[in-house]
Amino acid sequence: MGEAEQRGTRSRGGGGAARRAARSGIAIETARFIERNIPDFELLSAEALAIIEENAERVLEEIGVNFVENPAALDRWRAAGADVQGERVRLPRGLARQLCATAPRRFTQHARNPERNVEIGGRSLVLAPVYGPPFVRDLDGGRRYATIEDFRRFVRLGQMSKWLHHSGGTVCEPTDVAVNKRHLDMLLAHMTLSDKPFMGSVTEPSRARDSVEMCEILFGREFVAQNAVMTSLININSPLTFDATMMGALEVYAAANQACIVSPFIVGGAMAPVSVAGTLTQVLAEVLAGVAYSQLIRPGAPVIFGAFVTSIDMNSGAPTFGTPEASQILFGAGQLARRLGLPFRSGGGLCGSKLPDAQAAYETANTLNAALLAGVNFMLHACGWLEGGLVASVEKFVMDADQLGALHKMAQGVAMDPQAQAMDALAEIGPGGHFLGCAHTQAHFKEAFWRSDLLDYKPFETWDEEGARDTVSLAADRAKALLAQYQPPPLDEGVREALEAHVTRRKQEMPDAFV
Amino acid sequence: MGEAEQRGTRSRGGGGAARRAARSGIAIETARFIERNIPDFELLSAEALAIIEENAERVLEEIGVNFVENPAALDRWRAAGADVQGERVRLPRGLARQLCATAPRRFTQHARNPERNVEIGGRSLVLAPVYGPPFVRDLDGGRRYATIEDFRRFVRLGQMSKWLHHSGGTVCEPTDVAVNKRHLDMLLAHMTLSDKPFMGSVTEPSRARDSVEMCEILFGREFVAQNAVMTSLININSPLTFDATMMGALEVYAAANQACIVSPFIVGGAMAPVSVAGTLTQVLAEVLAGVAYSQLIRPGAPVIFGAFVTSIDMNSGAPTFGTPEASQILFGAGQLARRLGLPFRSGGGLCGSKLPDAQAAYETANTLNAALLAGVNFMLHACGWLEGGLVASVEKFVMDADQLGALHKMAQGVAMDPQAQAMDALAEIGPGGHFLGCAHTQAHFKEAFWRSDLLDYKPFETWDEEGARDTVSLAADRAKALLAQYQPPPLDEGVREALEAHVTRRKQEMPDAFV
Repeated sequence: MGEAEQRGTRSRGGGGAARRAARSGIAIETARFIERNIPDFELLSAEALAIIEENAERVLEEIGVNFVENPAALDRWRAAGADVQGERVRLPRGLARQLCATAPRRFTQHARNPERNVEIGGRSLVLAPVYGPPFVRDLDGGRRYATIEDFRRFVRLGQMSKWLHHSGGTVCEPTDVAVNKRHLDMLLAHMTLSDKPFMGSVTEPSRARDSVEMCEILFGREFVAQNAVMTSLININSPLTFDATMMGALEVYAAANQACIVSPFIVGGAMAPVSVAGTLTQVLAEVLAGVAYSQLIRPGAPVIFGAFVTSIDMNSGAPTFGTPEASQILFGAGQLARRLGLPFRSGGGLCGSKLPDAQAAYETANTLNAALLAGVNFMLHACGWLEGGLVASVEKFVMDADQLGALHKMAQGVAMDPQAQAMDALAEIGPGGHFLGCAHTQAHFKEAFWRSDLLDYKPFETWDEEGARDTVSLAADRAKALLAQYQPPPLDEGVREALEAHVTRRKQEMPDAFV
Repeated sequence: MGEAEQRGTRSRGGGGAARRAARSGIAIETARFIERNIPDFELLSAEALAIIEENAERVLEEIGVNFVENPAALDRWRAAGADVQGERVRLPRGLARQLCATAPRRFTQHARNPERNVEIGGRSLVLAPVYGPPFVRDLDGGRRYATIEDFRRFVRLGQMSKWLHHSGGTVCEPTDVAVNKRHLDMLLAHMTLSDKPFMGSVTEPSRARDSVEMCEILFGREFVAQNAVMTSLININSPLTFDATMMGALEVYAAANQACIVSPFIVGGAMAPVSVAGTLTQVLAEVLAGVAYSQLIRPGAPVIFGAFVTSIDMNSGAPTFGTPEASQILFGAGQLARRLGLPFRSGGGLCGSKLPDAQAAYETANTLNAALLAGVNFMLHACGWLEGGLVASVEKFVMDADQLGALHKMAQGVAMDPQAQAMDALAEIGPGGHFLGCAHTQAHFKEAFWRSDLLDYKPFETWDEEGARDTVSLAADRAKALLAQYQPPPLDEGVREALEAHVTRRKQEMPDAFV
């Protein structure tokens, strides 16, 4: 296990930060993305999956999908052989699946530090932080609207998180920056404060173009033309509706050979039927149509089968997270994605709780465990998500990011080499002995068991004397320590200046807009 | 799903308690034990399992196990063909597995209310509460030594918990009662305050006999001779040691045709090799020897393949819970038990946290989810476990018991009938519509999604106005409400008097012992 662990983690390189970190016990290395060495959990039978696939084809053929306020999309569909009436697009049986066949099964998303590149698809699992909350919460400041400074804090925390492979996208909404300009500040933060891969803006086609242009400054125009350097989130307006904003962003990215996640956004019972099988049918139909459309834009453009699906509390109408139905849909959608040959994306540490308390952790762990076994390749919201996605929590970011370490170890599977079989140790110790001191234990104990960098393992008396602190309190301290250790990864000064000049120029070209 | 739900839950019968509960919204029904309609997660390959089985045979043949201070056991082993030298018993290859073959694959544990009977084995999952803590903790009183009144409170909470099928055993240690008498008070509490199945005493052979005698009063002597009415926990003194106390209790129970859990008790790295494969080898060897011995006592006696295995924090020496290695061992042990054809027992809501906080919930959820997919048939510690088993927590009992509801729903699997396929709903609503009001949703929403009876689903403003309460605070209220609603299940007055008379008499026969 030691060797695998060494291969799996890499230092960020030498220098003062690494030495300071070593002294303080704060890790600043980043683990390699997960390559699963364990099976997937196959919840649904092949018969059940075939029924859902057949039903999804019927949905596309008989009901169809709407491409709203997008005449060019309707022309593309007509040319591809679809039946287009008004904004309704009906796809003859098999057309969508046939178009999807040109999408790659697996692709590399490049980071500006090549050691941080991630492979998306196959047996991989890439972990990215929370996306989208307008609020932040921390122990000191409570719940409040997020700002660009909060945003930068989360990017720095992500950079410092060993088990997080990806810097994410809108880790929180910087509500103090104009709506039409905040994507520039967010991209600049990801590009300069982190050297992990990131996501592009999707809230306007022009902002997607800004994202591509900034990547061309960071990576070089030639490189961007030939490699995926962004993975961006294209939500479907479920049920069965593709709006012009999201499709406009997808069109920009697909044309630029950049990756998109085509993702139904479903609160079950509201945006889909109140059953797992019905919801999976709708998810598959929506993904088939969306991915097929990406391939109409550019055959071979990288794309991910997305699914953000949760249940609803029928008493209050609130979305609920970490529920058994959400897990069932996750398992089923993973199976459908594998049969379709596409990388699969889910949510990660989802929860409905207002606080990073036991409810948050139950719901989060339920989702993380299901996602690992469901074969997810790209896990958005893997850490920091609180209150149904309304809040990005500093403490929960650190708490969840710690739990992600357990997924890495679980995914390694069980070693069965002679050392792991430990027959010598069993013979050496025999009945009634203790293994702590034996040679086998001494050789392997450092890498044998995953160890939290956050949770409390102290004797009761020590813990009590130190203030009887709960997880949130420990996490608040750890977040502060990580931020105090943070140093920006090296970046060519000319590139930094060019990025900043681009942001300044683009901001000057537009009046502020706040809606 | 509605019909399955109706079959799955049963009212405790009419009467005032039920009516009061209906008015107050507190459920007092109990769900039927889980029958899984989902596959198990097969972590290890058949090749890996065969290696472990081969290694376990080598351990039994070459290293052997110790039966300590138990000459009768050594005689039995000698007669069965084992190589006995001193207290060391070496089993020729295949002997243990052959002896295990007479143990039933599945058995019924009877409750005094036949509606509460549980099936243990096959696809079943029976949930039982925490076992063994000397301390209790609640929000009002903090952490303190447990008393018999605490014990009774947990039995009442268990009786009132919808998703708990079993009343358990030593839900906490009643430290205010003499060590040699507390089993009498504990059994009396399970028998009178609950009508769910329960566990017998194992701390002395004489206490196991007391347990059988009290069951003969409760169920009738004839009934007890022919049916399992107790499932009792026989821990192995790992590594590879069977002590006289536990084996003495096992001998009493097996002879009386009562069920035992034969359970290695392992903190990995201390009581077993510091590797998953080595630990599984030891677990299998120990279970094979222990189950084989139960069948030497009485062929056909019901018995469960147990495994209480967790990892260790090599920095502090503390046992750690909810870790990836613990889950891997759980999955692997489940596979070994199925191949051996025995019911399988694990721990449930295990955690190391001192408080019922996020750490406790992450660790608990990691364990509960793994146990469900590992094919566990009897889950001890399913609720209430805190601080590595040192503490029984009132709030965590209620919190975990609520999460157990999610396991029930998950285990039902995914319905694929035409109603569940929901093609009519998809056609009715179409692109851009809402499913909340449609006929399919109206017909199914009540049973479609599992709903917590505890967690917070309220809008932020409501939650904030109501005091911004965390999960522990909500759980404290729920525990109080459940206890306020509690009414003892009906019990024949003659039986109650006979049980009480037995307890009084047995207490008078013995001087108090406190060690």
